[in-house]
Amino acid sequence: MDSTPRTNMATTTEKEARIQPEWYRPSSSNTATLKLYNSLTKSKTEFIPKNGRQVTWYNCGPTVYDASHMGHARTYLAMDILRRILEDYFHYDVLFVQNITDIDDKIILKARQEHLFSQREADTKTLDAALVNEVQQAWTQYAQSKLSETAPNAYQDWESFKSRLTADDIAKALLIDEKFKMHVAALDKAYAALKQSTDLLQRGESSKEEALDLIGKTKDVYCVYLDKLHGHTVTDPKIFRDIPAFYEAAFFADMEALGIKAPDVQTRVSEYIPEITEYVQKIIANGYAYEADQSVYFDTAKYDNSQNHQYAKLEPSSKGNMALVEDGEGSLGSKLQGKRSPNDFALWKKSKPGEPSWNSPWGPGRPGWHIECSVMASAVLGDNMDIHSGGIDLAFPHHDNELAQSEAYYDCKQWVNYFLHAGHLHVEGQKMSKSLKNFITIQEALQKYSARQLRLYFLLKQWNAKMDFKESSMQEVYNLESTLNNFFANVKALLRDVRNEPLRGADERPNGLLTHRFRAEEKGLMQTLALKQQAVHEALCDSIDTARAMNEISELVSAANIYISKGGRKLNAHVLNKVATWITSMLKVFGLTSNGEAIGFPSTASAGQVSTEEIAMPYLQALSSFRDNIRQLAIEKKPHVDFLRLSDKLRDDDMVALGVSLDDQEDGKALVKLVPREELLKAREAKLAREAEREAKKKANADANERKRLERLEKGKVAPTEMFRTDEYTQWDENGIPTHDMAGEEVAKSRRKKLQKEWDMQNRLHQEYQAHLKQI
Amino acid sequence: MDSTPRTNMATTTEKEARIQPEWYRPSSSNTATLKLYNSLTKSKTEFIPKNGRQVTWYNCGPTVYDASHMGHARTYLAMDILRRILEDYFHYDVLFVQNITDIDDKIILKARQEHLFSQREADTKTLDAALVNEVQQAWTQYAQSKLSETAPNAYQDWESFKSRLTADDIAKALLIDEKFKMHVAALDKAYAALKQSTDLLQRGESSKEEALDLIGKTKDVYCVYLDKLHGHTVTDPKIFRDIPAFYEAAFFADMEALGIKAPDVQTRVSEYIPEITEYVQKIIANGYAYEADQSVYFDTAKYDNSQNHQYAKLEPSSKGNMALVEDGEGSLGSKLQGKRSPNDFALWKKSKPGEPSWNSPWGPGRPGWHIECSVMASAVLGDNMDIHSGGIDLAFPHHDNELAQSEAYYDCKQWVNYFLHAGHLHVEGQKMSKSLKNFITIQEALQKYSARQLRLYFLLKQWNAKMDFKESSMQEVYNLESTLNNFFANVKALLRDVRNEPLRGADERPNGLLTHRFRAEEKGLMQTLALKQQAVHEALCDSIDTARAMNEISELVSAANIYISKGGRKLNAHVLNKVATWITSMLKVFGLTSNGEAIGFPSTASAGQVSTEEIAMPYLQALSSFRDNIRQLAIEKKPHVDFLRLSDKLRDDDMVALGVSLDDQEDGKALVKLVPREELLKAREAKLAREAEREAKKKANADANERKRLERLEKGKVAPTEMFRTDEYTQWDENGIPTHDMAGEEVAKSRRKKLQKEWDMQNRLHQEYQAHLKQI
Repeated sequence: MDSTPRTNMATTTEKEARIQPEWYRPSSSNTATLKLYNSLTKSKTEFIPKNGRQVTWYNCGPTVYDASHMGHARTYLAMDILRRILEDYFHYDVLFVQNITDIDDKIILKARQEHLFSQREADTKTLDAALVNEVQQAWTQYAQSKLSETAPNAYQDWESFKSRLTADDIAKALLIDEKFKMHVAALDKAYAALKQSTDLLQRGESSKEEALDLIGKTKDVYCVYLDKLHGHTVTDPKIFRDIPAFYEAAFFADMEALGIKAPDVQTRVSEYIPEITEYVQKIIANGYAYEADQSVYFDTAKYDNSQNHQYAKLEPSSKGNMALVEDGEGSLGSKLQGKRSPNDFALWKKSKPGEPSWNSPWGPGRPGWHIECSVMASAVLGDNMDIHSGGIDLAFPHHDNELAQSEAYYDCKQWVNYFLHAGHLHVEGQKMSKSLKNFITIQEALQKYSARQLRLYFLLKQWNAKMDFKESSMQEVYNLESTLNNFFANVKALLRDVRNEPLRGADERPNGLLTHRFRAEEKGLMQTLALKQQAVHEALCDSIDTARAMNEISELVSAANIYISKGGRKLNAHVLNKVATWITSMLKVFGLTSNGEAIGFPSTASAGQVSTEEIAMPYLQALSSFRDNIRQLAIEKKPHVDFLRLSDKLRDDDMVALGVSLDDQEDGKALVKLVPREELLKAREAKLAREAEREAKKKANADANERKRLERLEKGKVAPTEMFRTDEYTQWDENGIPTHDMAGEEVAKSRRKKLQKEWDMQNRLHQEYQAHLKQI
Repeated sequence: MDSTPRTNMATTTEKEARIQPEWYRPSSSNTATLKLYNSLTKSKTEFIPKNGRQVTWYNCGPTVYDASHMGHARTYLAMDILRRILEDYFHYDVLFVQNITDIDDKIILKARQEHLFSQREADTKTLDAALVNEVQQAWTQYAQSKLSETAPNAYQDWESFKSRLTADDIAKALLIDEKFKMHVAALDKAYAALKQSTDLLQRGESSKEEALDLIGKTKDVYCVYLDKLHGHTVTDPKIFRDIPAFYEAAFFADMEALGIKAPDVQTRVSEYIPEITEYVQKIIANGYAYEADQSVYFDTAKYDNSQNHQYAKLEPSSKGNMALVEDGEGSLGSKLQGKRSPNDFALWKKSKPGEPSWNSPWGPGRPGWHIECSVMASAVLGDNMDIHSGGIDLAFPHHDNELAQSEAYYDCKQWVNYFLHAGHLHVEGQKMSKSLKNFITIQEALQKYSARQLRLYFLLKQWNAKMDFKESSMQEVYNLESTLNNFFANVKALLRDVRNEPLRGADERPNGLLTHRFRAEEKGLMQTLALKQQAVHEALCDSIDTARAMNEISELVSAANIYISKGGRKLNAHVLNKVATWITSMLKVFGLTSNGEAIGFPSTASAGQVSTEEIAMPYLQALSSFRDNIRQLAIEKKPHVDFLRLSDKLRDDDMVALGVSLDDQEDGKALVKLVPREELLKAREAKLAREAEREAKKKANADANERKRLERLEKGKVAPTEMFRTDEYTQWDENGIPTHDMAGEEVAKSRRKKLQKEWDMQNRLHQEYQAHLKQI
């Protein structure tokens, strides 16, 4: 306000001329802008889409050859959360493209091995020496190729090798290598199976079952052997398409189950072969690729040495890391010929027998891994995009090669403006790895946790930080979920309460309807809301810090809860509605709830496809049976307390079982809430525990009272007339009250008074005792 | 892109050092920012909220003394649309405050006149000369006060005056004045009724009905007379509260029916009296108001002459327009004394007898109209707000006085940064006016058009432009609605088609599943989408031009329809989904659909997105309230039959209303069924009809029996001994049974037997008769 006054006062002339007076342009404060952690700058960079509110975004999709696991969940949920926040919070018009890699060495190998193995299974008739010998040969080949440098060449040395593995420090160190560990495990399992089969054979057992058992248990080792021997004979293209088709469908189902929005454009590598060959041709034409032995390679040296380009922009430090480079080239690429440099990578691979192929200017072959993404992203988004994203493990070489290819193709300096990478995921402190098979599939995770709980878990972590997925830290998610649920249930019940109230009679106004007042309490809550809205905005601007945003939201819930608990029944419904609606809208932005409800999550059995009847019937049956029982009581003219007991039972048992909280109020009108059953059960247990405690206290009190009563009775056995008949005194009056002490002297008056009091007391106790005797 | 390259090429050193290479900061284009038409600048001004994304907003609510009409719909829908776009499109955190004016001269007058009139109705017994004379006097007074300068003073001149009205050009010109027209209409109607009553009286007719008919037809004229005579006797505060309470509830119901979001904070004048008196005191202390005759007035001259202030900032040209000033002061204010200038306006009005009052430092009185809004807006939003809004007819004097008051109170230069005014609404070319009673109420409009159609109508016009609401231009709305509906239905069907298709066999791929291809067609549609998104953004930035935005959306629908019709079955479902989802999201922003569906409007009877809670809650509330009542009965130890009655009521009323059939069974366990409500109502009617029929039959039987009994008694009057004493016989035995017939012949034995039977019968009847006699 008052930032740019043209004049300090309205002039008399202005006033007389009756022209529009000066207006003071407000100046804005607190205007945070969105920054994103950009892998290209390794810092949080202001996000500037190149075309207004349009955001073009390519996210690396999966290679579909196995079930998706928590690592996928991490990446795709992180990107889904970012995307939703950019679309629904920052209100960008996002075009989100994602691919399916359905041509890949891993797919080819898996398809071929599965095919050969199931053929072998079909051909297997009996367990015989030939089979055992063959598997043993497979074992030896596997051991030689995988452990050649460290392990024995012969089957006979296995036991001693294994024993050295745990004793020998150098060997122990080898176990850090996951692949080594996996190979040892595969060999060991196969070794045991082979031993068993040898024994069986010696005992003359040769059943088909035993044969299948042998090849089943040695599958990992045996498949490699079968593939080496027969892989080149697999030619039916269907075999190479069925595997990715199956896992693609499974991937989509997993994504849907996690509540991840489908991409706007979904591309498949197998549908982009013509575009790929054209793309490769242009890179060759631009001088950054060369053909060799019917394959085409990217010339990394030439590219890196050119003035306008730099190779490995994302991970300059990984340049030349041969383990990563080879891994990127695929397991079938090792025998391709003609690379000028080991850093060069395949754009187009000549297909050998047993590998699917498409025609190309260089002969039958298939695209390399990295070129796919360059081509599909270019096909949809063109020569530059705002955002490219994927898991951090793809940064080098995949994304760096993609950048090199595309910038070579367009001969441009920057194909991607913001490269976002989801952080690594560990499980219980250990790196998840497909080769180790320690991964939790998404399906397994969803059996344990709801999609909302998983999303909450990820929201509580920074999307680009390393994350350790630990069962123990799920407790935080449960607590947060239950805090939110309780808050929503309370607010909804209070709002219903206000709505259901009849229009208050005019007599109760103007001061009766406090729900319309805006007092210091309401002002305070609205100020907290504004602060939290600003804080959430700042958190999201700060590279989408959802953890901080969720924390601010939790604090707002606490503030609202305090407002509710302090307000009693004098609450402003509008203000509470405002807070709950805003929180819900943010949870919607985060993808935690997608339905049309203005407040809260959809209740457990979300109505999706369920009929009204299915939902309503359990409640109606409870109602009907309650009514049945009331009628019965009325017909039998039972005492009124029975009706109250039945009402309590309805609240404490039947409704709790249905996840309904009936909260009796002083005005005789119970608040109705839908609350998760578990919470109600817990609350009931706590209540029962409290009641039990109260009962125990009551009983302890009663016991103490009884003890006192018995003590009094015991004491009362002595008649007052007898109580002072001791050696202490020598004379007594007619009531037995001492008149002279043991010295024969008269008892002093004050002493007499005291004795009289004691006598009165005993008299009362004795009378009680006698009354007690009569009663018995 | 490439806007700020630090260097033109990556240096060799950089590459060798393996440090992060240069990143080129993108430069953004097409960045429109929101402008709003600001009444304070009379131009589209960039919208700058003073505190980041927080927007404080006060919207003038209604004075609740009559049904809301299309003028209200125009203002509140316009503001609802602006609010939703600021909240859901520009994503501001808006705090929206709205008041209810429940203290006002119009309310007082309406309450008093309605009260006096219904009292008069109750007192009316016959049509007599006194009554006719009184009404005639009322007529004359009305004519004198309302038409004094133009019309005859006497009742006798009316016919000639009326005939001049259409013949005389000067008189015709008068008809342009709406109030004049209204008064003539009221007088004319009353004149006719008086004529008729006079005739009736002459014919000697004097029934109560005729008397009520007279005062009913002359109500407009008669009420003014009654109020003048007896207005000061109305003192019960309840009378002044019932009217606003009723119309407030009706207003809320109308707003809900129009799909207008409830304000975040709702204030009522009657709840802010202490704040109002304090506010007025401070304005006096600041030197801008003065007390006179127990009222307080704003000193417009002093304010306008001060250096820091200017009076009538919104409408400088209306300053001194006495018609508007007087209208703003209210119809009961004319007799207040002590204004220093006719431009001054009341902050606090002394209440005369017959006007509700609150205590104040200046004696019993009530707040002026304008001060209410200054106080309530200040109470919630403080010393400055981003937006104040209301209908354009409130700009002067109401909003200008509000600004003056608040800027005088805070002694600040700018209390409101953006003043938004919804444009005027005409109906079929004519100005709508309460006084003319040509207004369409919201309820009437909603019987003709759906809330969505009305909103579409308003969306197609500029919110701050004059609007002529014409039935004929509704066609445009119907067309648009049907275009949208067809588009959504098509896309949904296509998407269902894709989803329902079994996973295509690998054989049909890689070229079979065209729904994943992104060809020129798809690219074209996505480009159109991006252009339209940008265009809609620009339209909304341009002072929220919803008409242009809707037009851009229509064009996008056309483009998508062309894509569909050209594509045949080779459509990319993702791309269509993207377009339809975005359009739906914009329609949601505009408030045209509020449910959770991703595409299209909710289908009328769709249970699709309804939550368990929404479904179950009505049943649960019935259950809870039944239980509440049972507990109440039990606590009050009511007789058992009351419990049974309550159970029957639950079955016959509450459950029927919810579409639930409770079918009581012999075993005491009712069957529960969900049955359409209409069927249950029909069944209940049929049951009642059957019961009524049974009752009628029973009564008919009883009647017949009674008739028979009376006949028997009648018949039994004759003693059997006398029954045969006729001429037919000549001799009888001792019981009076004939022994000889009239011919003197002995009665045959068979005849005797028959007569004996008749005698026995009569003997029984006679005994009954005698017993009956004894009973009486």
